[in-house]
Amino acid sequence: MTTVRVDSFTISIDGYGAGPNQSLDNPLGIGGEELHGWLLSTRTWRQVHGKEGGETGVDDDFAARGFGNVGAWILGRNMFAPSRGPWSDMSWKGWWGKNPPYHVPVFVLTHYARPPIEMEGNTTFHFVTGDIDDALRQAREAAAGMDIRIGGGANTIQQFLRAGLIDELHVAISPIVLGSGERLFEGVDLRASGYQCVQFVGSKNATHVVLRHAAR
Amino acid sequence: MTTVRVDSFTISIDGYGAGPNQSLDNPLGIGGEELHGWLLSTRTWRQVHGKEGGETGVDDDFAARGFGNVGAWILGRNMFAPSRGPWSDMSWKGWWGKNPPYHVPVFVLTHYARPPIEMEGNTTFHFVTGDIDDALRQAREAAAGMDIRIGGGANTIQQFLRAGLIDELHVAISPIVLGSGERLFEGVDLRASGYQCVQFVGSKNATHVVLRHAAR
Repeated sequence: MTTVRVDSFTISIDGYGAGPNQSLDNPLGIGGEELHGWLLSTRTWRQVHGKEGGETGVDDDFAARGFGNVGAWILGRNMFAPSRGPWSDMSWKGWWGKNPPYHVPVFVLTHYARPPIEMEGNTTFHFVTGDIDDALRQAREAAAGMDIRIGGGANTIQQFLRAGLIDELHVAISPIVLGSGERLFEGVDLRASGYQCVQFVGSKNATHVVLRHAAR
Repeated sequence: MTTVRVDSFTISIDGYGAGPNQSLDNPLGIGGEELHGWLLSTRTWRQVHGKEGGETGVDDDFAARGFGNVGAWILGRNMFAPSRGPWSDMSWKGWWGKNPPYHVPVFVLTHYARPPIEMEGNTTFHFVTGDIDDALRQAREAAAGMDIRIGGGANTIQQFLRAGLIDELHVAISPIVLGSGERLFEGVDLRASGYQCVQFVGSKNATHVVLRHAAR
């Protein structure tokens, strides 16, 4: 049974999932890199990126859970590339180098068609020009009973939340303020869309919140 | 030296300090009462309301700090009364009965003049028709060196934040979603206004965040 999940999506105290002025130099906008302090020091994150050591505990438990049983990812175009509009630089293959940390099919929402890109380590980027239902259908087929993880960004998550298509959402709140940028819950009425808080646990680095759709 | 403070202002995971459709029956809007679960069970809250018992710990520490060294309060009109516009019911003397839990002068921001109201227990409600600087000046004089606590609501806090007039802001994040209502940080750029997070600590009932103006 496939669960559609968001994991480890991090927001500031004032609710932003990315700072203002996203660019090649600031993929998460100004100040946005600070969001992930809780994640970068975990053992799981270090392992995924080929490093040893790291901390265990609540933060690591949530980091680890984000990588378990994932059969396909869905990303918004802006999480895949800093460019906007028609693909001008076909040599761009994502932010993550030759061997991205996905290792499963990744479906990228875009208005501009592009052939799939096979990367090392079993990651393939597929470009979906249909709607979110279309992306979910393709991801579900690829996941073959495993879960689908929606990586972001905020706008992509909002589309799925408004449609009630996300079963479970783990959000981390980091001890920083961003002031402006992309607010995760902008234009989403979580109550009306059927979500409630089912877990709430903190560390010194972040507060972890799990929201679940009431019908699941 | 007077500190201008906000204490124990509580928001939902999705950032709302009150739910939608505030009224006499739902002073905090629909669902808004759920925000204060962390506060209602504390020993401090129970003492302030003449009850015995209650929990100690992180939540109580923050509740207690909110009542220490306060020489004057500032409230928005909507925190004082459910009515809007010109005062039609002069018998309305606030939500809190004959002996409100302030025990110091309280300055209510309003566009409509009204004589002060002296209550039992040393609380006097003053109605300020000037701007926030005017309210702050009057409150500062009344506080005579003690602190000024700005009680809310969200709109009032936003005005003071945008002007950088709040020295320290304690916000509690409760494990609920409200979906809509009044967002605390709407129209405020906390970074640009000079605020940063200086404390971040959680209990099972709430995450407590303290923001401080960088110049203080």
